[in-house]
Amino acid sequence: MAYDSDTSSDDLILRADNDGVAILTLNAPRSINALSEDMLSALSGTFDRIAGDRSVKAVILRSGGDHFCAGHNLKEMTERRADADGGFQYFQDLFAKCSAMMLRVVHLPQPVIAEVKGIATAAGCQLVASCDLAVAADDARFATSGVNIGLFCSTPMVALSRNVPRKLAMEMLLLGEFLPAAHVAEMGLLNRVVPLEDLEATAMDLARIIADKAPAAVKIGKRAFYEQLEMPLEEAYAFAGRTMAENMMAKDTEAGIGAFIRKAPMPDWTGE
Amino acid sequence: MAYDSDTSSDDLILRADNDGVAILTLNAPRSINALSEDMLSALSGTFDRIAGDRSVKAVILRSGGDHFCAGHNLKEMTERRADADGGFQYFQDLFAKCSAMMLRVVHLPQPVIAEVKGIATAAGCQLVASCDLAVAADDARFATSGVNIGLFCSTPMVALSRNVPRKLAMEMLLLGEFLPAAHVAEMGLLNRVVPLEDLEATAMDLARIIADKAPAAVKIGKRAFYEQLEMPLEEAYAFAGRTMAENMMAKDTEAGIGAFIRKAPMPDWTGE
Amino acid sequence: MAYDSDTSSDDLILRADNDGVAILTLNAPRSINALSEDMLSALSGTFDRIAGDRSVKAVILRSGGDHFCAGHNLKEMTERRADADGGFQYFQDLFAKCSAMMLRVVHLPQPVIAEVKGIATAAGCQLVASCDLAVAADDARFATSGVNIGLFCSTPMVALSRNVPRKLAMEMLLLGEFLPAAHVAEMGLLNRVVPLEDLEATAMDLARIIADKAPAAVKIGKRAFYEQLEMPLEEAYAFAGRTMAENMMAKDTEAGIGAFIRKAPMPDWTGE
Repeated sequence: MAYDSDTSSDDLILRADNDGVAILTLNAPRSINALSEDMLSALSGTFDRIAGDRSVKAVILRSGGDHFCAGHNLKEMTERRADADGGFQYFQDLFAKCSAMMLRVVHLPQPVIAEVKGIATAAGCQLVASCDLAVAADDARFATSGVNIGLFCSTPMVALSRNVPRKLAMEMLLLGEFLPAAHVAEMGLLNRVVPLEDLEATAMDLARIIADKAPAAVKIGKRAFYEQLEMPLEEAYAFAGRTMAENMMAKDTEAGIGAFIRKAPMPDWTGE
Repeated sequence: MAYDSDTSSDDLILRADNDGVAILTLNAPRSINALSEDMLSALSGTFDRIAGDRSVKAVILRSGGDHFCAGHNLKEMTERRADADGGFQYFQDLFAKCSAMMLRVVHLPQPVIAEVKGIATAAGCQLVASCDLAVAADDARFATSGVNIGLFCSTPMVALSRNVPRKLAMEMLLLGEFLPAAHVAEMGLLNRVVPLEDLEATAMDLARIIADKAPAAVKIGKRAFYEQLEMPLEEAYAFAGRTMAENMMAKDTEAGIGAFIRKAPMPDWTGE
Repeated sequence: MAYDSDTSSDDLILRADNDGVAILTLNAPRSINALSEDMLSALSGTFDRIAGDRSVKAVILRSGGDHFCAGHNLKEMTERRADADGGFQYFQDLFAKCSAMMLRVVHLPQPVIAEVKGIATAAGCQLVASCDLAVAADDARFATSGVNIGLFCSTPMVALSRNVPRKLAMEMLLLGEFLPAAHVAEMGLLNRVVPLEDLEATAMDLARIIADKAPAAVKIGKRAFYEQLEMPLEEAYAFAGRTMAENMMAKDTEAGIGAFIRKAPMPDWTGE
C-alpha cells in the first residue's frame, strides 16, 4: 500500500514498442507506482489502445524505480473520508475502477507478462496475479498486506486465489507477510525467478516467443482460456471444440499446418 | 478410521483461551479422536459458541494423545446396521451432521488453524483440509484411507480436492496410502511442517499474528474468501469490491490506514 | 502433432488383461500414435467395452513405439480442407469426437493410469491430463505445442487447466515448449516419475493397488470425484454425503468395515 502520491511525472505509463512487444512501464516511482485514480485511468487507457493495435503481439508490464507496485493510493483514498457518506460511494467506485482495469488485462487479446522487481503488494500483487505470465527478480517480494492496517485485500484475493492453492492464498491474506519470489513461484504465481540483472531479458525472451506465434492462434487461445475455466467440463469441451474449429479456418493456421506437414519452416504470419 | 469408542472423558473438546486465541483439544485419544456423534456435537457446539464470542480472534484445533484424528467411529456406525433400513437413514444423517460441522469451520468468523501430529485420516484429514491454515509435525501422516476397507472417502474428498491438485487428490483417494507431512505440504495442504517439539509454538505463532490484526478485517476477509471462490471472475470482483468498500468504513480500518499514512504504529484495535 | 498416418497395423489399440488390470497399448507408432479418426474410434470403443466389463478393476494406457502420443493427425485433417466449407464442419465433428473420447476416460467406472514415455503433446498431453493418474519416464517430455503451427491447443487446455496452476498452464499453451517430466510433475500433472526401465512396473503397481480395492467403492468414488468438483461447497457436501451413505450399503463395504473392526484381514471382495 502506498501513502504518497507522485506528481513528478506527466506520463504515468511509459510505452515503448519493440518489434511487436509493447513494454509498459509504471512510472510513478515516488509513490511506489501506487494505483491512484490517475494511474488506473492511464493503465486502462493504455490497455484499450493496445487491444486495438494489431502491431502489438505481446505486452510486458514493468516498473520504474526499485519496486513493482504498492497497490492503492491510501492518501488519496483517505482524503475522501470527508465526503458526506464518509467516502463509501467513492470507495465502491474506486474498487470497481480498479477491478475493471484488472479485467482489461484478462480480456486483452495480447498476453501480458508481469516483470517484477522489489515489492508487489496488495493491488500490486493482484496485478501480477492478473497477468497471463509473470517473471520476477530473485529478491522481489510479494504480499497481500492490507490486513496489517485493517483493510483485508479482498479484491487482490480474487486474482490470488485463482492462481495458488487456497491454504497458501489464505496464509498470504491473513498473515500479511512478505514472501520471497522463490516461495510464491513454488505456489504457482510466477513462471520464472531470475537474478535482477537478467529480469528484463527474461521477460523479453518470453514476449518474443509469444510474438513469433501466429497472432490469431494466440488471441483465440487466450480468450478461450479464461472463458472455459468458468465452465463445467462438458460445456468447456463443447466450447473449446468450436473454438479450435474456428482457429483451423485462419489462413495462418492453414499455412502453418501445411508447413509442418511438409517439414518446412513456419511461414511469416500474416495475422489473418 | 477408528473402531473404538472413548468414554473415559467427560469433555470431548477441551477449550483453553489464551489472549484472544481459543485452543481446542480433541480429547478422545483412546478412539484416536474419532468423530463420533458425540464428538461431532461437541465440535459443532464449540464452534457455535466461539462464533459469537468476540474475545476470540483465532482458533487452534489440536489433539490429545499421539494422533490428530482417525475419522468416523466405525463401531458406532456398524451398530446401526441393525436398523430396519440397514442404517441407511442413519448414515445419511451422520454424514450430513459431519458435513455441517466441517462447514462450521469454513463459516466461523475467526480463522481456524489445524495443528496436526500423528495421523490424520479420512474425516480427520478432511478436518485438516477444512481449516483455514494447517501446520503439522514432520512425522505426521495423512491419508484418505476409507477405500482400503470398501468405503471411499467421498465427503473428505470434497475438502481435499479443493485444496490440492486433482491428480494428487485422486491418488490419495484411490490408493489410500499414508503420506508424510512434507509430501502433502508440497501439494498445498499444509502451511508449515516443523519438528514435533516446535508444533504448538508454530501454531501459536500463526494464531498470534492473526489475533493481532483488526478483527473486522479478518472476519470480512475470511467470509469473502470462500464466497468469492465459487463465483465467476467478474461477479467475484463486483462482490469483492463491495466487500472492500464496507471494510473501509470500519473504525479500526480508518485508524489503521491513518496510522500507516502518518508512519505511526498501528492503534489498539477496538473491534469496531 | 503428427503428420503421418499409420496403416501398418490392424489393431490400433492392443488390449491385454492381467488379473483385473486392462493394459491398453496405443499401437500406431509410425504416426506417433496420432489420434486419427480411426484411433479415436478404437479408443472410444475399447473404453465402452471396458465400462461394462466387471472383470476390469483398473486400466493402464501405454504406448507402442518410443513415444506416448503426438495428438491429432494433421495430414488427415488437412485433406478435408478440400470440403465445400473448407473443412469447418468436419473439424467441429472431429474435435467433438475427440472430446467425447476424453470424456469417456473421465466417465469410465474404472480408474485409468497414463503410462508415458517419449513425448506427449497436444491432444496426447490432453490424454495424460484426462486420465485419473499418470506416471512417466524421467526422460518423457510434455507440450501443448499447437500454438507453434498456428493452432492453439484449445481442447487440450480444458484438461490441462483443470490439472495445473493457471499461470503454468498458460505458459505451456502460449510458449508451446516441451517440458521434462520432473517439471510437469511439480505442477501436479504426474503422480510418479521413474527411470524408463521402471515405468511399466510403476504403472502396474498403482493399478494393482487399485484393483485390490472393493470395486463398488472405487466406482462410486471416481464418479463422485468429478461430479462434486463442479458443485459449490455446500451442494458438494450434500451430494457426497448421500454418495457415502449409498457406499455404506454395499455388501463388500459392510464386510470390509466388519473385518477392520475385528482387526481381521480384508475379505475377498465380491463386487457387490
